[in-house]
Amino acid sequence: MRPSDYVKSDRLWANLMELAEIGAIDGGGVNRQALTREEFDARELCIKWALKSNFRISQDKAGNIFFTLEGRDKSKAPIMTGSHLDSQPTGGKFDGAYGVVAGLEALSAILESGVCVERGIEVVAWMNEEGSRFAPGMMGSEAFVGVRSIEEIEAVKDKNDISVAQELNKLHNRFSEINFVPLEREVFCFVETHIEQGPILENCAIPIGAVTGIQGVRRMRVRISGEEAHAGTTPYYLRKDAMAEASMVISSLYKLFSSDEEMRFTVGMSNPSPNVPSVVASEVLFSIDLRHPKTQILAAAEDRVADIVKNTLQTCKGQVWTIASADTISFSPDIIKVIEVAAENLELPCRRIFSGAGHDARQMSYYCPSGMIFVPSKDGISHNVKEYTSKSDLVSGARVLCDTLMNLANRQDLGTK
Amino acid sequence: MRPSDYVKSDRLWANLMELAEIGAIDGGGVNRQALTREEFDARELCIKWALKSNFRISQDKAGNIFFTLEGRDKSKAPIMTGSHLDSQPTGGKFDGAYGVVAGLEALSAILESGVCVERGIEVVAWMNEEGSRFAPGMMGSEAFVGVRSIEEIEAVKDKNDISVAQELNKLHNRFSEINFVPLEREVFCFVETHIEQGPILENCAIPIGAVTGIQGVRRMRVRISGEEAHAGTTPYYLRKDAMAEASMVISSLYKLFSSDEEMRFTVGMSNPSPNVPSVVASEVLFSIDLRHPKTQILAAAEDRVADIVKNTLQTCKGQVWTIASADTISFSPDIIKVIEVAAENLELPCRRIFSGAGHDARQMSYYCPSGMIFVPSKDGISHNVKEYTSKSDLVSGARVLCDTLMNLANRQDLGTK
Repeated sequence: MRPSDYVKSDRLWANLMELAEIGAIDGGGVNRQALTREEFDARELCIKWALKSNFRISQDKAGNIFFTLEGRDKSKAPIMTGSHLDSQPTGGKFDGAYGVVAGLEALSAILESGVCVERGIEVVAWMNEEGSRFAPGMMGSEAFVGVRSIEEIEAVKDKNDISVAQELNKLHNRFSEINFVPLEREVFCFVETHIEQGPILENCAIPIGAVTGIQGVRRMRVRISGEEAHAGTTPYYLRKDAMAEASMVISSLYKLFSSDEEMRFTVGMSNPSPNVPSVVASEVLFSIDLRHPKTQILAAAEDRVADIVKNTLQTCKGQVWTIASADTISFSPDIIKVIEVAAENLELPCRRIFSGAGHDARQMSYYCPSGMIFVPSKDGISHNVKEYTSKSDLVSGARVLCDTLMNLANRQDLGTK
Repeated sequence: MRPSDYVKSDRLWANLMELAEIGAIDGGGVNRQALTREEFDARELCIKWALKSNFRISQDKAGNIFFTLEGRDKSKAPIMTGSHLDSQPTGGKFDGAYGVVAGLEALSAILESGVCVERGIEVVAWMNEEGSRFAPGMMGSEAFVGVRSIEEIEAVKDKNDISVAQELNKLHNRFSEINFVPLEREVFCFVETHIEQGPILENCAIPIGAVTGIQGVRRMRVRISGEEAHAGTTPYYLRKDAMAEASMVISSLYKLFSSDEEMRFTVGMSNPSPNVPSVVASEVLFSIDLRHPKTQILAAAEDRVADIVKNTLQTCKGQVWTIASADTISFSPDIIKVIEVAAENLELPCRRIFSGAGHDARQMSYYCPSGMIFVPSKDGISHNVKEYTSKSDLVSGARVLCDTLMNLANRQDLGTK
C-alpha cells in the first residue's frame, strides 16, 4: 500500500466543512479575513487536529503557523506544503483552506501508513494571502522568504486604522504556548495544493493539474480628472465630464486587450466623485488588473495603458500608475515531474496547467524549488460564495499531494531551484 | 422711495457668508445635506434673523419652515417666496441659500420701508430640494402641494438606513416651540430667486433673468448584471463583465445624446459590485439625468435608452427604469411681466431665460401662479465649491424680488395659474 491509500476521504471532507463553519456567510461562502477572530478560530481548529496526530506545532513572527511530521534526519532541511486560512470578504469554502486541510490529511496518511520519511514535512498556513483586509497580500510568505521586512508588514493598517502589528500581538497572546521558529530558515522544497479557480480542468474532465508556473500581473490605477458641474444646465462644450471620458477609456482598453485571448484585463473597481445623479462627475478613479503568461507582452501592455488614456481623453486629465508588479514565474520541472508520476501511479488523469491566479507558491519559488497541484473548480468560479469542488476531486488532489510529499521527503537533491 | 431702496447690500452679503460657514468645506463650498445637523443649524440662523425683525415663524409636517410678514388682510391668501437651505455634498454657497436670504432681505426692506401690504408675504425654506441624501429631492414642496404623501416621504432612507421620518422627528424636537401650519394651504402666488447655474446671463452681461419655464427631465436608472469571476483566471469567453459592458453602454449613450446641443445627458452616479480590483464586476448600477426643453424630444430620448442598452450588451443583462419624470413647464406670464417691470423701474437690464435646472418653483407652478428670478453664475458653474455670484448681482436680484413681492402682495388676482 502507498501512503496515499491512507488518505481518508470522509475525514478530509468533514474537516473542510468544519473549517467552513468558521466565518460562514449566506450562500455557502466564508468571510474569514486575515488576522480576524474568525481566522484565529480557524487556526485553533487546525491546532486541535494537529495535536490529535501529535504533529509538532510552531509559529514565526510573521504570523505563519507550521505543523510538522518529523523526519528521520533532523539535520536535513524539511519539505513544506500548505496554503492559507484567510479568505476574501465574500469568498468560498475552498480557496486556501483546501491546501491546509489537504496538507494535514497527507501528513496523517503518511503517519498512519507507518512509513518513515528522511526529511521532516511541514504544513504551513501562511498569514494574509488574500490582502483584502491588509493590502497587499502574501504577507506571511513574503516575510518568510525575506522579500518584505517584518517592520514593513507590521505597519500596514486596515480601513479601521488597526495595524498588522496590533493583530499579530493578539495572535501571539492567544497562541502563547506555541514555540517560535525563525523566518528565512532553510526549506528543501515547497508544494501547494489549491483549487484551480478557472474552468480548464473541469472542461477537460481532468482531476489533477500539475502547475507549470504563475502568470505575471500588473496592478494599476487610473485617475480621470474633470470638473463638477450641474447636470441640467451645463452645456456640453463647457463640460469636463470624468464619467463620460472614463467610460470611453475603459471601453478602449477592453477593446484593445481582449483581442489577445491569453491576456486578462479587468477593471474591477471604479469610484466616481461626487457620485450623485445630478452632478457631472469631477473624477473617476479606477483599477486595472492586467495579467499575461509572457512577461514581455505584459510589460508592453502595461506601457500602452498610458497612451490609450492620453489618446482617448478630450477635456479631462489622466493619471496612470502601477501599484504592484510581478513577472511570470516557472515552477521546478523536477517537482512538476514528481506530481505527474504520482498522479500516473494513482491512475488519476493529470495535465500541465498554468496558473492565472497568484499564490504563496510564487514567493516560495524565489526561495526553493516549488510547485503546485490544482483540482477543478466548478464552472471556474472563485472569489465567490458559489466556489465548489467535488469531494472526489478534493480527495484525488490530497492523494497526489501525499505521494508527491513522500517522494520529495526522501530526495537528496532536486535539479532546479 | 421704493421698498427695494431699503435692501441693504452689506446685510445681504454678510448673512449669506454667515450661512456659508455652516457646513463649510475646502475650496469655499458647503456640505449641508437635507436634515443633517448642519442644515438644522442653518435653520436656526434664519430663525435668529427672523426673530430680530419679528416675523412670524411656522413649520409644517414635511419639514418646511416659513417666515411671515403679516399683511393687512389676514383673510387673503399670502404670497410666497424662498428656496432651500440644503446643499449637494460638495455644493456652493449660493444654490438655494440665496433664495432664502434674498427673501428675508426683501421682507426686511418692506418692513423697514414702512409700507403696508395687503397680503402676507412668506419666505419658505423647502425641505430637501437637492435629493442627494434622500432621493429624489423636492420633498418639501411636493408634500406641500400634495403630489407626494407625507407617508411616502417619511419612508425614504439614506445610505446609512436612516429614514426621513427619523430625521423629521429630530427636527421637530429641536424646533418644538414653532407652531405648525397645514400642508396644502392656499397660496396666492410663488416667486423663487435663484442663481442661474448656467452661463447665459454672464455671457450677455445681464444681471436679471425673468424665468419663463423649467425644462423637462427624466431621472433614470440602469442596472447591468453580469457575474462575479476571478480577474486572473477567467477567460474572456466565460466572462459576463458588467464593468466592461456598462462602459460601452455609457459611451454609446453619451455619443448619441451629445449630438443634440439642447439635450443634457449626464451619468453622474455609478456603483459597481463588488467593486474590488481582482474580481470581475457582477453588477453596475448607474444613473441617467436626461433633460430637454421640448417635451416630445425628451420623451423620445427616454424611449431610446432601453434600445441602446439592449443593442450594446453582449453577455450581460440590462434593466432600465425611470424614477422621476417631469415635462417642461411654463411660468405665469403675469409674474414674468411683473418681474420685468420691477427690473425696468430699477434700471436693471433683464432678459427672459429658460431654466435648465429643476427648482421647487416647478412644484409650486402646478399649484399657484409661479415665477423665478435668476442672477448670473460665474462661468456657469454650480453644484461645485467654486460656485460664485458677485455681491452686486445678488443685490440686484434681491431688489427686483422686493419690488416684485410688493406688487404681487397688493394684487386682487393674477391672470394665469
